[in-house]
Amino acid sequence: MTLVLLTIAGTDSSGGAGIQADLKTFTAHRCYGASVITAMTAQNTTGVQAVHPSPPEFVAEQIRSVLSDINVDAIKTGMLYDTDNVLSVAKTLKQHYQSQTMIPLVCDPVCVSTSGHVLLHPDAIESMIIEIFPLSQLITPNIPEAKLLLSRSGLPDDITSLEEMLTAAQNLLSLGSRAVLLKGGHIPLTYQDLCRVTAANPRIIWAPDDIYDQNMEILQNGRIPAVDLVIDVLCQCSGEINLFPRPRLQSTNTHGTGCTLSAALTCQLGMGVDLAEATKKATAYTHLAIETAPSIGHGSGPLNHLHSILIRRIPLRSQTNPYPLTRSLIQGTASIWKGYVQHDFVKLLGKGILERGSFLHFIKQDYHYLKYYARAYALLATKSHAYDPISAAMETVVTVVRESSMHVEFCAQWGISQSVLENTPESPATTAYGAFLIDTGLQGDSMKLTMALMACLLGYGEVGLWLKKEACKPNSWVVWDGNPYLKWIEDYSGQDYQSAVRKGLETIETKAAADPPSEGRLEEWRQVWEKCTRLEKGFWDMAMNLS
Amino acid sequence: MTLVLLTIAGTDSSGGAGIQADLKTFTAHRCYGASVITAMTAQNTTGVQAVHPSPPEFVAEQIRSVLSDINVDAIKTGMLYDTDNVLSVAKTLKQHYQSQTMIPLVCDPVCVSTSGHVLLHPDAIESMIIEIFPLSQLITPNIPEAKLLLSRSGLPDDITSLEEMLTAAQNLLSLGSRAVLLKGGHIPLTYQDLCRVTAANPRIIWAPDDIYDQNMEILQNGRIPAVDLVIDVLCQCSGEINLFPRPRLQSTNTHGTGCTLSAALTCQLGMGVDLAEATKKATAYTHLAIETAPSIGHGSGPLNHLHSILIRRIPLRSQTNPYPLTRSLIQGTASIWKGYVQHDFVKLLGKGILERGSFLHFIKQDYHYLKYYARAYALLATKSHAYDPISAAMETVVTVVRESSMHVEFCAQWGISQSVLENTPESPATTAYGAFLIDTGLQGDSMKLTMALMACLLGYGEVGLWLKKEACKPNSWVVWDGNPYLKWIEDYSGQDYQSAVRKGLETIETKAAADPPSEGRLEEWRQVWEKCTRLEKGFWDMAMNLS
Repeated sequence: MTLVLLTIAGTDSSGGAGIQADLKTFTAHRCYGASVITAMTAQNTTGVQAVHPSPPEFVAEQIRSVLSDINVDAIKTGMLYDTDNVLSVAKTLKQHYQSQTMIPLVCDPVCVSTSGHVLLHPDAIESMIIEIFPLSQLITPNIPEAKLLLSRSGLPDDITSLEEMLTAAQNLLSLGSRAVLLKGGHIPLTYQDLCRVTAANPRIIWAPDDIYDQNMEILQNGRIPAVDLVIDVLCQCSGEINLFPRPRLQSTNTHGTGCTLSAALTCQLGMGVDLAEATKKATAYTHLAIETAPSIGHGSGPLNHLHSILIRRIPLRSQTNPYPLTRSLIQGTASIWKGYVQHDFVKLLGKGILERGSFLHFIKQDYHYLKYYARAYALLATKSHAYDPISAAMETVVTVVRESSMHVEFCAQWGISQSVLENTPESPATTAYGAFLIDTGLQGDSMKLTMALMACLLGYGEVGLWLKKEACKPNSWVVWDGNPYLKWIEDYSGQDYQSAVRKGLETIETKAAADPPSEGRLEEWRQVWEKCTRLEKGFWDMAMNLS
Repeated sequence: MTLVLLTIAGTDSSGGAGIQADLKTFTAHRCYGASVITAMTAQNTTGVQAVHPSPPEFVAEQIRSVLSDINVDAIKTGMLYDTDNVLSVAKTLKQHYQSQTMIPLVCDPVCVSTSGHVLLHPDAIESMIIEIFPLSQLITPNIPEAKLLLSRSGLPDDITSLEEMLTAAQNLLSLGSRAVLLKGGHIPLTYQDLCRVTAANPRIIWAPDDIYDQNMEILQNGRIPAVDLVIDVLCQCSGEINLFPRPRLQSTNTHGTGCTLSAALTCQLGMGVDLAEATKKATAYTHLAIETAPSIGHGSGPLNHLHSILIRRIPLRSQTNPYPLTRSLIQGTASIWKGYVQHDFVKLLGKGILERGSFLHFIKQDYHYLKYYARAYALLATKSHAYDPISAAMETVVTVVRESSMHVEFCAQWGISQSVLENTPESPATTAYGAFLIDTGLQGDSMKLTMALMACLLGYGEVGLWLKKEACKPNSWVVWDGNPYLKWIEDYSGQDYQSAVRKGLETIETKAAADPPSEGRLEEWRQVWEKCTRLEKGFWDMAMNLS
């Protein structure tokens, strides 16, 4: 299920605030975002150059377009610009709520930009309080906004200490929203302030993390704990009060901080997270976005909205590309892979004119190789933590052991006794490949070992299918009837083997999809795959050279 | 370096097209997006309900706000709406280019919405051709747009076959842009069409991937190759022609496809990728976005812009949170961790009143445990692929072996000979912990083994620092002078050990940051950490119980 969020706010051409910041924040939380624009701004990191408000009826039209068609999980409002637009937003939402249940709404009561530009006409403040606050699960004023809201409501508006912040938040709660997050960024506070207030017993939630966390001396060692704190106050109509302290960052890259925080809160509320936890997560997201902000523009730069996401290195599995990992592995080693699966050994075998000596050399060495291969699967069982993978690996061991007895029969047909077979010295190509499997298994995790086992499993499957497909073409170069190696071709193109191939494909694709690798880890897999593909080719070189 | 991209286009309140699709696409490519709005729409998946154009001067103002402040790496234009806005965009860009070098620009010549709504006034088409195309590295018309552009320019506008697409693309190239990507979504084509045209020798680039890829029979096995293809044609002024075929998707979720493709192209061009490769990547991104589209709205739904990104599970390292992995591990096991590092054994030891028998039992068992610990580090060396980690692990082995000789001396002081020490039976708690280290090392990769080694290294460091910190407080419960276990406390709180702790912290944090784990992998680490923390506590329980 995709979570759908709606922002009703202004735009910021420079992309750091407004609906742009909201949509980026939604996306960085893997949520779907819709947006209703109340006013456009020509704006950059140095200030607001121009504003072009949306007509109130057009604001209503946008809201109706979204809500009439799409199920929205949570809404935020940002800059509403003027009384007409405030009234239009409130009226349209209320109309929607006549037939639908209310949607959690976060109201960021944006009034003035960081650069001092008026973003809500002063005469619109009362409308916002009367019309929007009662629809809101949460309002998120900063200190200047709180002072405006309080003074307009005839409430005390002195906010210079943590104690006064607590009082102010309580008073703001009386304005109609179900909760108030009073953001303390404008008031310098310290750990001492926090200690003093805890007497009154609000719950303290550090976000991003408690710098005074218990039992983490090793993480503090040599570091001076932050002296200056930012403390946000959350008051809920349930009576619950939380404080959210965090180290104060010395940064000018705070353009769009309020938008980002309220958008992140909207994501969390949409996900159904409770308000205190939502605030902790949203505050942590925003804090790190400021701390890792890129350097963009000449003024107060935007935040880093991207810190919470990574690029997926293997495409999602889909109907048109069900094996994206395997495909990328083969594509990344195209010529080596081709040199393996269309090796001269294979072609001569398909034509039925492969030297018997080469084939026998191959069979003898493969007999040795299969011991390593069986042991590698046994190691895979050893590295597994659940009965299913243990059982699957051991079944393969049994199959490989059975396969080896076919080698014994093969050799017997051509007059080679089991004792001669057993005593055939192992070729370097065999040792290289076999020992590499065991080494890889010892060195890495079960996925890396599985990767090492794939070039053999998949490659022989490819050879089988290719020869069979070619044989079906008119006047094919592949000889079927009377080919002395027909059984070999039939084995590897046959259903039993091909079903093992499909199981192998499913295993690595499922594992890779469930545990998406980082770039570095994917590169490790690629290297193992490539190495094994080369070793496979080397194995057939060996057979041809009788080396 | 953050890549900065600018879109100049209309809005889509429902979030699937326009600047919303562009910003989502930019974000999903981890690029920074700015946006200039030419017109706002009230729109959803069923159609466009209303349009409110931006005044031309306000469009210019937005462009100036962005370009005067921010270095933009690439630009795209989408819906420009009318002649005045086309002229305003062209004029403002040209003014900027008088003092600055030109920025790669992708022009998506949006004319009509999928739902049939006019998005560019017919009289504005000529202005777009004359003013915008010459500024463009690439234009990306679909078939209806191409027909409009060609007929307005007095060129043949029949496009019903792949051959006519090639001609049309060539003709479109004469309109002034440096390249043309003619999108073939509206023309049903087949593999046979492709085979016929290859005679003329354009380069064929499958995107997302070649369904007829060489040597991938195993991936086709049992699947019928797509019969219906979409083929895009790319003509460049260099004369290079590329075809981009892909399976045609049967999907109604195509709202914003053109916006998304041109935005993805803008990302690639901004990164400096050449046009053919950029088209391949952007086409693959868009194809998968359609194929994995969520179900949103009642009409032609939006694409899945998020398929290319994953949520980062461990926060970025930052100054206020330099050890995010370790912090989350400790927080996730807070009570178990506390039970370990503030164990009664530790408290009694700090007070100097720990039973001598308990301490000696601990020392004897620790002597056995350290053998496992040394072997686990030797295994870590075995699992390493570079000299540095091999050397680091072996240094630890040497240190641990030296530490064991201190145990021998300790015991000698208290009248226990080395032979008695060696012959002390191993307690189950010792075997459990030691064997778990070796098992984890055998089972997983080097990071998982490192994880298993951390609870011991970090926990003893924590105990040392805690006791030292407590000892420094006035009237401390910790006895320093005359404490019979002082040397033990000094060792673990001392510089040598603490520098090993910091190296350990750096190792796991650096590895986790370089190879960000999936949720599943992080959970595996957590489980190993928690298990070892419990085993550590169990070790001290054993010492207290003499078990």
